Amino acid sequence: MSRPELSRDTQLCISLAARPSNHGTRFHNWLYDELGLDFVYKAMTTTDIEGAIAGVRALGIRGCSVSMPWKEAVIPLVDELTPSAAAIQSVNTIVNDVVDGRPVLTAYNTDYLAIEQLIAAHGLSRDERVLLRGSGGMARAVAAAFRDAGFAGTIAARNPLSGQGLAAELGWDWAESADGLGAPIIVNVTPIGMAGGPDADALAFSQEQVAQASVVFDVVAMPVETPLIRAARAAGKHVVTGGEVIALQAAGQFELYTGVAPTREQVERAEEFASRP
Amino acid sequence: MSRPELSRDTQLCISLAARPSNHGTRFHNWLYDELGLDFVYKAMTTTDIEGAIAGVRALGIRGCSVSMPWKEAVIPLVDELTPSAAAIQSVNTIVNDVVDGRPVLTAYNTDYLAIEQLIAAHGLSRDERVLLRGSGGMARAVAAAFRDAGFAGTIAARNPLSGQGLAAELGWDWAESADGLGAPIIVNVTPIGMAGGPDADALAFSQEQVAQASVVFDVVAMPVETPLIRAARAAGKHVVTGGEVIALQAAGQFELYTGVAPTREQVERAEEFASRP
Repeated sequence: MSRPELSRDTQLCISLAARPSNHGTRFHNWLYDELGLDFVYKAMTTTDIEGAIAGVRALGIRGCSVSMPWKEAVIPLVDELTPSAAAIQSVNTIVNDVVDGRPVLTAYNTDYLAIEQLIAAHGLSRDERVLLRGSGGMARAVAAAFRDAGFAGTIAARNPLSGQGLAAELGWDWAESADGLGAPIIVNVTPIGMAGGPDADALAFSQEQVAQASVVFDVVAMPVETPLIRAARAAGKHVVTGGEVIALQAAGQFELYTGVAPTREQVERAEEFASRP
Repeated sequence: MSRPELSRDTQLCISLAARPSNHGTRFHNWLYDELGLDFVYKAMTTTDIEGAIAGVRALGIRGCSVSMPWKEAVIPLVDELTPSAAAIQSVNTIVNDVVDGRPVLTAYNTDYLAIEQLIAAHGLSRDERVLLRGSGGMARAVAAAFRDAGFAGTIAARNPLSGQGLAAELGWDWAESADGLGAPIIVNVTPIGMAGGPDADALAFSQEQVAQASVVFDVVAMPVETPLIRAARAAGKHVVTGGEVIALQAAGQFELYTGVAPTREQVERAEEFASRP
């Protein structure tokens, strides 16, 4: 991979995570190269989130992706919280615009935005109830996007603190387990089915739940064809995959930083490059 | 120019200046490429030096070159001021080391270090007096390095505030003008002879002063062969050029950031690349 030569005008985007992966660095730099954009992207880590965001501001860093454990901690450090981040009080994307010579930091949650777009793109109907497994950060983003699009449903999560809490926030039902439940739209936001995990070969919903559903949505993206997605395809169900979530999320973040919308095919190739071992 | 692919482990070095040039970005990135180092360099600007240095710390930025107008302002923001920076209370290079998991910022002045090295490399004798024209930031670095190496001399500078002040600090003489003065070592640290300037074709010292000197040192580096250096060569004098200052300064900074000492030939090629229009 070659990249345009760096200059004083090259814009820098970074990510902040406790344990940074190489994925974002490879994904964004590949697309900058492909699209001929004078940008450079670099994963970083910090133990001082206030200093880090002060640096984003003072150094004119154009964009900053935010991962665990900083997604809530950055909220008081930005200037504007857009509805996607405000809805779940969780930020994964900060854009730095210079307005009247001063940096203005605007915060988004592109996970939420991706789900919002997928609900519309797949024509999911708010008349159908949602059964969602999970209560972590991504589950909050997915459930809030459904709720804000007018859907009602149930959060199935063992942990009463996060599960019941999330359900209460949404005005949804809570169940300790999804066993015996069913809904037209079933959504997995747990690591079940994720390659390398303890439940890589497990189904996040039973064959019976799949049979009763009309839409099967799995947020797991590694692999895209999880056991759940394979079962849903075999049963002829409408599927929404984690690959779509990742691609839309990453494309959204890319466009917020650069103002350029990559095509779906470019995002897929960038994703393929970034995921290569 | 191709560069190794960026990863989360790539180290970032930056520069901070009110009006950044492309020189450092091109110089350092060319050498990273040549030497196969996993580094990337990017010129930046700021209006908030405290936030910028907080960012260097919190984001783990490995090195930070400091230009006008921040060379003094960063002093209270670093953890350690090495003798080169302390001698003239002016910083142009900050190195960020992680010690026991915490960032430690150490400040240097590689202009001072370069002059110190040139005095030794050229075998200049402290028994010979110095006549130095100029009283700006670079003149302070040059004069202090001479003084600290045991030289005595005269600062010739029209501005009494900076000129007389510098002379007083050094324990040297001050003269409003170099006219009629002479010394075995004559040093120009004014823009006289600099390409593109109003005095591009002027001699910083008279033919007579050149004739009386044994060593002619011109800090102007654009061009390296200034009118003064050409006159000195024609008169068979020992010359020290601004090209040598720039190369040593840049190599010193590069080594502080990377731990790798480029060869003189590599520095010259990087300099040549960086100076290309």
